[in-house]
Amino acid sequence: MSERVGWIGTGVMGAPMARHLLDGGYQVEVFNRTRARAEELVQAGARWREGPRELAADADVICLMLGFPDDVRTILLGDGGVLQAMKPGSLLIDFTTSVPTLAAEIDEAARARDVEALDAPVSGGDVGARNASLVIMVGGSEAAFGRAQPLFSKLGRTVTRLGEAGSGQHTKMMNQVAIASGMIGLCEALLYAHRAGLDVEQAIETIKGGAAGSWSLSNYAPRVLRGDLEPGFKIDHFIKDLGIALSEARRMNLSLPGTALAEQLYVAARSQGLGQKGTHALAVALAQLSNERWPAR
Amino acid sequence: MSERVGWIGTGVMGAPMARHLLDGGYQVEVFNRTRARAEELVQAGARWREGPRELAADADVICLMLGFPDDVRTILLGDGGVLQAMKPGSLLIDFTTSVPTLAAEIDEAARARDVEALDAPVSGGDVGARNASLVIMVGGSEAAFGRAQPLFSKLGRTVTRLGEAGSGQHTKMMNQVAIASGMIGLCEALLYAHRAGLDVEQAIETIKGGAAGSWSLSNYAPRVLRGDLEPGFKIDHFIKDLGIALSEARRMNLSLPGTALAEQLYVAARSQGLGQKGTHALAVALAQLSNERWPAR
Repeated sequence: MSERVGWIGTGVMGAPMARHLLDGGYQVEVFNRTRARAEELVQAGARWREGPRELAADADVICLMLGFPDDVRTILLGDGGVLQAMKPGSLLIDFTTSVPTLAAEIDEAARARDVEALDAPVSGGDVGARNASLVIMVGGSEAAFGRAQPLFSKLGRTVTRLGEAGSGQHTKMMNQVAIASGMIGLCEALLYAHRAGLDVEQAIETIKGGAAGSWSLSNYAPRVLRGDLEPGFKIDHFIKDLGIALSEARRMNLSLPGTALAEQLYVAARSQGLGQKGTHALAVALAQLSNERWPAR
Repeated sequence: MSERVGWIGTGVMGAPMARHLLDGGYQVEVFNRTRARAEELVQAGARWREGPRELAADADVICLMLGFPDDVRTILLGDGGVLQAMKPGSLLIDFTTSVPTLAAEIDEAARARDVEALDAPVSGGDVGARNASLVIMVGGSEAAFGRAQPLFSKLGRTVTRLGEAGSGQHTKMMNQVAIASGMIGLCEALLYAHRAGLDVEQAIETIKGGAAGSWSLSNYAPRVLRGDLEPGFKIDHFIKDLGIALSEARRMNLSLPGTALAEQLYVAARSQGLGQKGTHALAVALAQLSNERWPAR
């Protein structure tokens, strides 16, 4: 428990995750591009460091939770990157949802410096981060996974190693692919029901126990109906994830027509000013497609 | 309980449903285009009638469970149709998944003859029919619904009146719209995971408790993985239902891009010889799109 953890990225996901480690007895040092977002952690006992390299030099474990794969690449790799500053024998955990092939590249660069690396994207959103109920999808060696287990246990409910480096990212992509078309189905169903003049809430109650049932139908449909479009998970971030999924699929010569349609519809939603709203705001964009101002909000 | 029920259509859904009424104490008379399929019911005590009109003349309640809206129209409406032969004060229940506007037309024709009509499509498949655990989505008057409740209670677990004539059909369409894109998401996710080299079963276990969770993921994904493509619900029938949904949406000036894509992918699946397989066999058609012979079966 006396491992020193360096945490880079204290946004809406990273801050509560780092806080759980602090509360769990870890020494935590933090860096974030915008210092103000780390202030609450510092008040709670985390040590602020002026740059990622300063933080890396002393840490036994470095954790990243950033926005985009390019941020991860810039901070970790190349001259002046974190990896060069890390101690031999230390462990790098990237919680960012990112590119599977980048995870493999990081793993290789880490091995060359006697550092262990894990890709560990999560699902569960900010609520999961706050409640330490995240699903954590891990890629990397068995040994590194074993070493990280006590730390993961402070953050997540379901923690699974799926295989070698990149496997965590691939599993996250699989998750997003399933969600994307599922959300189209959900939003089109609600819109159909509304346009057909049904009592949409009653119709949802009727079908949700059957083959149309899903986590999204139970959790997001009621929010759509009352016009609550707050995230959940933001459309801007979902477009990033779907871009990664489609790019990886293209690399694997894999055609995913449903995911491609979903990505385009989410681009339309962003174009309608919904980028900072939750993924279920797709319902609004689909309604606008048919000139329907719905739901009331 | 002494009501005389005339049952038209004793296929894979109709036969077990009629049987539950028989077992529940109703006098049941049956007609089916192919007599052989009614034989088991006749052995169990149902009375065979030579035509739908003969059956209609004596019945207090007429139930239909047919394949296609055109079958319903042919049997019910026009000269020589069942509706002309029904007694004033009798009740017509159409369990067929059919066109909402046809349900409204039938309702109007029924009222003109002092007959009550309900549209009552179901979900739950042949298993639901055998276990009397169907979801029954009902459109029509409150009075007719109240009258049919004892009969419905022999067949289904969740029985809901959604509104006037056609509302049951609209709710069933909403259900199918949600399922269609959901199944694309599920099948693309499985295929992505397979192509990425993941242990697909383990990946499913990891994500199914989160936001990607659905009835289809829990129930159909394992079948896909072991190459079990038996229905469930047949692709041929799903194409019929999606055709109705898209046609109704078009009539309402409602654009449903995800449902349209699903319909086209299911046509492709049928073209690949999968029409008699279950809806989850979409995974095979999507795999073939990317030249992948998967799953093994």
